[in-house]
Amino acid sequence: MTRTSPKNHDDSMEFANRMNGIDSSPIRKAFELARSIQNPINLSIGQPHFPCPPNIIEAMNRAAMEGKTSYTLTAGIPELKTAMAEKYRSQNQMQYAHEDRILVTSGISSALFLLFNALINEGDECLVISPYFLMYPAMIKFYGGKLVPLSENFEAKDLETLKNRKFKLIIFSNPSNPTGKVFSKEQLRALANLAESTGAYLISDEIYELFDYDEKFFSIGSEYEKTITLTGFSKTYNMTGLRLATILAEEKVIQALTTLQQYTVVCAPSITQWAGIEALKTDMTAYIQDYKEKRDFVYESLKDYYPIQKSGGAFYSFFQVPCDDEEFIKRAVKKDLILVPGFIFCDAKNFVRLSFATEWETLKRGMKALQELSKESESF
Amino acid sequence: MTRTSPKNHDDSMEFANRMNGIDSSPIRKAFELARSIQNPINLSIGQPHFPCPPNIIEAMNRAAMEGKTSYTLTAGIPELKTAMAEKYRSQNQMQYAHEDRILVTSGISSALFLLFNALINEGDECLVISPYFLMYPAMIKFYGGKLVPLSENFEAKDLETLKNRKFKLIIFSNPSNPTGKVFSKEQLRALANLAESTGAYLISDEIYELFDYDEKFFSIGSEYEKTITLTGFSKTYNMTGLRLATILAEEKVIQALTTLQQYTVVCAPSITQWAGIEALKTDMTAYIQDYKEKRDFVYESLKDYYPIQKSGGAFYSFFQVPCDDEEFIKRAVKKDLILVPGFIFCDAKNFVRLSFATEWETLKRGMKALQELSKESESF
Repeated sequence: MTRTSPKNHDDSMEFANRMNGIDSSPIRKAFELARSIQNPINLSIGQPHFPCPPNIIEAMNRAAMEGKTSYTLTAGIPELKTAMAEKYRSQNQMQYAHEDRILVTSGISSALFLLFNALINEGDECLVISPYFLMYPAMIKFYGGKLVPLSENFEAKDLETLKNRKFKLIIFSNPSNPTGKVFSKEQLRALANLAESTGAYLISDEIYELFDYDEKFFSIGSEYEKTITLTGFSKTYNMTGLRLATILAEEKVIQALTTLQQYTVVCAPSITQWAGIEALKTDMTAYIQDYKEKRDFVYESLKDYYPIQKSGGAFYSFFQVPCDDEEFIKRAVKKDLILVPGFIFCDAKNFVRLSFATEWETLKRGMKALQELSKESESF
Repeated sequence: MTRTSPKNHDDSMEFANRMNGIDSSPIRKAFELARSIQNPINLSIGQPHFPCPPNIIEAMNRAAMEGKTSYTLTAGIPELKTAMAEKYRSQNQMQYAHEDRILVTSGISSALFLLFNALINEGDECLVISPYFLMYPAMIKFYGGKLVPLSENFEAKDLETLKNRKFKLIIFSNPSNPTGKVFSKEQLRALANLAESTGAYLISDEIYELFDYDEKFFSIGSEYEKTITLTGFSKTYNMTGLRLATILAEEKVIQALTTLQQYTVVCAPSITQWAGIEALKTDMTAYIQDYKEKRDFVYESLKDYYPIQKSGGAFYSFFQVPCDDEEFIKRAVKKDLILVPGFIFCDAKNFVRLSFATEWETLKRGMKALQELSKESESF
């Protein structure tokens, strides 16, 4: 018996077409590298190095002890939605924020997935500010959309030529992962105008909003009510494993996404939602100050070695290296240093992303290794 | 300025086509009805009435106190996968079960969503045992698949005529939500044979496996290794809000779903995964025995009033009513009784689903109301 028939069982078991080209390797590579090194200088990690504050843990454990382990309402517990509405009004100057405009999700990734799933038809053009969080292009491709990149250094007048095109959505993270850029009001207003004139959904991913070292962060949703604003708890409070975020949007958008959530994750974890209420009462100023000092230290350590700009926010620096990014990553690994190659965030092939969310000692070792790499680069 | 232009901004903001026809109302109706009644006899709820056992809560809280609040590996923590592999081998006779064949997800809904998303192309035919869990048809429709229903009372020979068709997947819940049916070995073997000959993925949703009152439950995965077996923690331990389940499948399927999970919920909640390990050590016999008595009580109370079969498992009874289901639901509400209409689980319009996962007092009130409704039905 031969196995050449095209009707052979193993051959006919296929995934959906949308699974073609979805690939995990760029993310995993850094993880695997870090595991292969005894005492790595791991500057690849996209999460804070400090622990989740104990009052948040206590609130979560109390909820569990009180038996809050059942399904919550699909859109989230009213208590958290009320607290988030208040936060949006007082901290983000969004006076229209209201419980019915809020959906609680299992982290920003889950929020993004609901959005892309609910919005993108085959062939839809999506304007993505570049460099971009790697999930945006992956999910746009997954649902058959087309990515149209726009450099994060755009000026308002650059958008004039785009006004007659049709975009399904415009998306960016502010502050940016991977570059740490905090967008100017002029840039954000230009994007809102473009969204309005092209009928696009404007999605502002603000998961790093508290990591704003020069107090320049501005929520475009405070001026443009149609903005879909994404707010996460993961990065701010080191709750990355607890899966909690919220979406603030027009009511009709929230209703549609809530329906879709019923058929996907059903609800965000119940006890995590209770932890979220306590998180909103927690002062993170000291943690942010620590990262601000690290941001400065990275810039001062590297500015004479690489063409680098000071990050405005998040906990990343994204800078040009003197060779192909993957080649640079390999050379860094020889010094036990783990970075993320820039190509997964943009079209360019000569940038790397560095995360300064780590201990001082690790960061100092990392800067030393990068200085050495720069000096050696003449022989690259 | 008129608002008649089709290019008007509000009109042009559209969702993706797949959002058409996705609807939350059938589920919500019962919820809303229950809220409108002072002291409802709520037999609509699809979750246990007992609390999550305290040792599980303690294990979860301990994990939180130990700082386990960061991202886990996408596929789940190795400790839980090892414990699940052991459970599959010892309790489900799946000797091939192994960590690399297991993906930890945020509940069964999340597992189903990953599967449907990864598998269904436009036009794919999906064989669904009917009556079915309402998420199956919703997600098949969402991704453009075609539902082909097959009555749960099928015999092996009934499948002969289907052998030359092409199905993308075959799906059922065993024990069944909504009917409580526990499938016979002959039925399951016939489905496995059909999957093998048509090249379909066989998906066995075993979230109610422990609610097996006559010890007739059989995991088809113990005989057919290509089975995709879904196992949940939500119903067994009342962890519905904690979002935890696992998928056991061939390694290539697990790898594809793991990649997709990276771009969706990223990982199941970290502390819930630690709770899951403790849950597997927890003896639920007393809880199951209580539900067995309730299963018997429902049958004995209703058998002289309705054409009803004794449920074999889960915590539902699905029975015929003497009029249109929605009409019956309305009459029940007048007696403060909340049930779920059968039409959301199948094509028939004269069935209702009753959940006996409740206190004795509520159940007794419910049986009395149903007996009265039957007597009154002559005047319907």
